[in-house]
Amino acid sequence: MPDSPSGLITLLTDFGNRDGYVGVMKGVIVGMSPEAKTLDISHEIPPQDIRSAAFLIERSFRYFPAGTVHVVVVDPGVGSERKGLAVRSERHYFVGPDNGVFTGVLEGAEVRTLADSRFWLKDVSNTFHGRDIFSPVAAHLANGVRLEEFGPALANPVVLPEEKPERTLEGWKGTVVYVDRFGNLVTNLSPEVLDSDGPSVIVLEDGSEWPVVNTYSSIGEGERCAVVGGFDRVELSINGGSAAQEAVVIAGSRVLLKRCL
Amino acid sequence: MPDSPSGLITLLTDFGNRDGYVGVMKGVIVGMSPEAKTLDISHEIPPQDIRSAAFLIERSFRYFPAGTVHVVVVDPGVGSERKGLAVRSERHYFVGPDNGVFTGVLEGAEVRTLADSRFWLKDVSNTFHGRDIFSPVAAHLANGVRLEEFGPALANPVVLPEEKPERTLEGWKGTVVYVDRFGNLVTNLSPEVLDSDGPSVIVLEDGSEWPVVNTYSSIGEGERCAVVGGFDRVELSINGGSAAQEAVVIAGSRVLLKRCL
Amino acid sequence: MPDSPSGLITLLTDFGNRDGYVGVMKGVIVGMSPEAKTLDISHEIPPQDIRSAAFLIERSFRYFPAGTVHVVVVDPGVGSERKGLAVRSERHYFVGPDNGVFTGVLEGAEVRTLADSRFWLKDVSNTFHGRDIFSPVAAHLANGVRLEEFGPALANPVVLPEEKPERTLEGWKGTVVYVDRFGNLVTNLSPEVLDSDGPSVIVLEDGSEWPVVNTYSSIGEGERCAVVGGFDRVELSINGGSAAQEAVVIAGSRVLLKRCL
Repeated sequence: MPDSPSGLITLLTDFGNRDGYVGVMKGVIVGMSPEAKTLDISHEIPPQDIRSAAFLIERSFRYFPAGTVHVVVVDPGVGSERKGLAVRSERHYFVGPDNGVFTGVLEGAEVRTLADSRFWLKDVSNTFHGRDIFSPVAAHLANGVRLEEFGPALANPVVLPEEKPERTLEGWKGTVVYVDRFGNLVTNLSPEVLDSDGPSVIVLEDGSEWPVVNTYSSIGEGERCAVVGGFDRVELSINGGSAAQEAVVIAGSRVLLKRCL
Repeated sequence: MPDSPSGLITLLTDFGNRDGYVGVMKGVIVGMSPEAKTLDISHEIPPQDIRSAAFLIERSFRYFPAGTVHVVVVDPGVGSERKGLAVRSERHYFVGPDNGVFTGVLEGAEVRTLADSRFWLKDVSNTFHGRDIFSPVAAHLANGVRLEEFGPALANPVVLPEEKPERTLEGWKGTVVYVDRFGNLVTNLSPEVLDSDGPSVIVLEDGSEWPVVNTYSSIGEGERCAVVGGFDRVELSINGGSAAQEAVVIAGSRVLLKRCL
Repeated sequence: MPDSPSGLITLLTDFGNRDGYVGVMKGVIVGMSPEAKTLDISHEIPPQDIRSAAFLIERSFRYFPAGTVHVVVVDPGVGSERKGLAVRSERHYFVGPDNGVFTGVLEGAEVRTLADSRFWLKDVSNTFHGRDIFSPVAAHLANGVRLEEFGPALANPVVLPEEKPERTLEGWKGTVVYVDRFGNLVTNLSPEVLDSDGPSVIVLEDGSEWPVVNTYSSIGEGERCAVVGGFDRVELSINGGSAAQEAVVIAGSRVLLKRCL
């Protein structure tokens, strides 16, 4: 039994906030769905960084009410043969390109290809499907149009290769999956792996050690720590500094959670 | 027969998002028009860049519903003798300073000088008419106050000098009218001028050639192209780079669209 | 007699707009208070800069309707023993950490410690009380829950040391209390102190003199001035430049308003 739409539409793009692209998307949405409320998740995703978009939408969507429509437009392939998607997953809706941005929400999802141009703007450009296709589809979803109407089911949407955390003899091994604007290194380790007795550290590929603490406030200026951050994942942080800079680490780097002896 | 207001008010300024000026404008608006919905077009216009503001509002407003009120505040002359305006054009309303920001929407428009202080905040500063005059006027427009009530008609509002594209023997000549945050060079050439057989290129003043393509995805990393972008205008772009930087070109530079032989 | 809530909730944080934290807060709010409207004041406060947050909220809140709930999250002590607060002051509500961010609105205020976890998210993290505690409390306030219900009264909330302007034989002495994104130096001198006959100047600690003028437009490119700016306070400005850079002055510097002889 699908959830009825909440009237909420979130937007997550790499368009920035300077050139008016996001405002125009909202204009299209509100013109087609006057009662809908739009909320921004981010428009400062690094250009064409599909992986960061996939991370942010997967970590964020559950905090919105069931029935919310999430529009994600990080879309280097716009105008090519890449498909557009409408997805229903965990009582939420998702609209955007079929390029992996929905990797984290596809488990058990119903996926439709956007095929019926009745739900798009009349003129569709080759460079701005966020305005011409995805926003109108989101507005129609918010208006109660059923997922099935937008196009045929798709069995194999694009997914990004994902490294799941694994338990080893040394400890939990994970991956840096996102770097935030402060240079905090966010891993894919969830809080549960910390459920241990005694102190532990995260070890980075460069050998540096980051003691696991409960709160930022427990470490001094310039000190390293590992803490469960705002994404509900273990992240590496330097109080008042940039972990990414000091460790010269990028997304994809491996980390090891080790109990202190 | 004028359109009734849509209850929507857009904001376009050079105030940035850091110092709370935009939030305060919205507070004033919602205090006077509780049902109005405010939407941002941009607040990151380069400081005092009237021309970029004029470009963005002209390119954006049609994507909002008829009856929307658009507040544009790029206002280096605030506190001087420059007038304030309320404008009705193409079924939309516009509010802001009389300094050229409305150049692109004045054709056939009804233009009123803001003169009746009943529609302003009680205390009007010399430095923030966005808050004290333009936001209250926008709220009153959204509430249904008629354009005529704000002040007398104005026959000759300020307009920026505009260079229209012209057809020459060599091909269409146009101008770079906007540089976006990625350094894409947006021209005033509309898609119609591309309706030709065979490949063509855009030639910049520095002699560089930019092949016209259909989509970003058809060119390789670091390559140049010209493409109809999100503003529905031909723009010059470098895949993964900055056209503005490579070409050392600024707004106002001339471009030539040439058919390849 | 307390004001009933306006249904408006403003947000002021140092979270930035890139990583989705603010969007998630809005998701929590709208999930608990579907009719509430959220408005941003700023999310670009310098990280952990409690003083700038205190300045911005004090200068901004009066422009919103009575009954608005203002959420302020600049919270270096999150997860420590610092308290959370719900405050009623001058017909507005305020929610955030007890670290001085509400210094400017505490006079005559009713202050409550956030103690009753019924009004929080079920799972409360150690690093993101903006999402887990302050947003839910704001939503409940907007829904009409009374201040008393959130927790016990607090007699001595944290306040920042404040230097009030003082009248001396030389003239009014004040302090630089905020530096805006253009490098304008905002003082705590209100317009009233300018009510004098004849021209005057502001003198900075470095001896530089800034002539008091009525509007930005009355000075030339690159010239210095002092003007009543958008915060309704005297600020030092360089036309087209950065006063903060030229004067190498930081928040906390002393200024003197001197009448010209």
